[in-house]
Amino acid sequence: MMRIGSVIKLKPEAVLAYKQLHAHAWKQVLAKITECNIHNYSIYIYGDTLFSYYEYIGADYAGDMAKMGEDEVTRAWWSICKPLQSPVDEIETGEWWHTIEEVFHLD
Amino acid sequence: MMRIGSVIKLKPEAVLAYKQLHAHAWKQVLAKITECNIHNYSIYIYGDTLFSYYEYIGADYAGDMAKMGEDEVTRAWWSICKPLQSPVDEIETGEWWHTIEEVFHLD
Repeated sequence: MMRIGSVIKLKPEAVLAYKQLHAHAWKQVLAKITECNIHNYSIYIYGDTLFSYYEYIGADYAGDMAKMGEDEVTRAWWSICKPLQSPVDEIETGEWWHTIEEVFHLD
Repeated sequence: MMRIGSVIKLKPEAVLAYKQLHAHAWKQVLAKITECNIHNYSIYIYGDTLFSYYEYIGADYAGDMAKMGEDEVTRAWWSICKPLQSPVDEIETGEWWHTIEEVFHLD
């Protein structure tokens, strides 16, 4: 099982819209996330920074992420979320959310 | 089950020491955390910001936190960790790490 932590910024004027959107997340998007083997997925906000934590329980992370990206409803969801977000300066090629380093874990 | 996300800063010169300390976390501290009903506990670092995520599976969070604070080895651990850390401006009474808002969760 992989645990993945990542960060992204929200545009300051988009905080309320982002929260409302996620309080009413689309069921097809949630189903696709689960189908792609992502579980226990939480997003927290601190100021204008979003932190996400999730667990990947499949055997082909890249393949599952590609599958998610091919889903029409998920792409429509992203087309709404992305304009609200602003990637951090440390973003690497292929990232939108930026993966951060785990320094401690206790099961 | 409660999920808790929180943040704190590290003093810039303390990043390596903090990582090393947590790569060699004391087994009595880990055992006390587990005994106090905290599970699936991760800490991530982004720049000088630490983000923690854990799950509380007990029935008396305040009581369990008080029990942890009475443990001599845990207090010794904290006496080393705290000088490396710098609480965020938003800290509230009784906090060291600052609890942040969950905006999304999917089991």
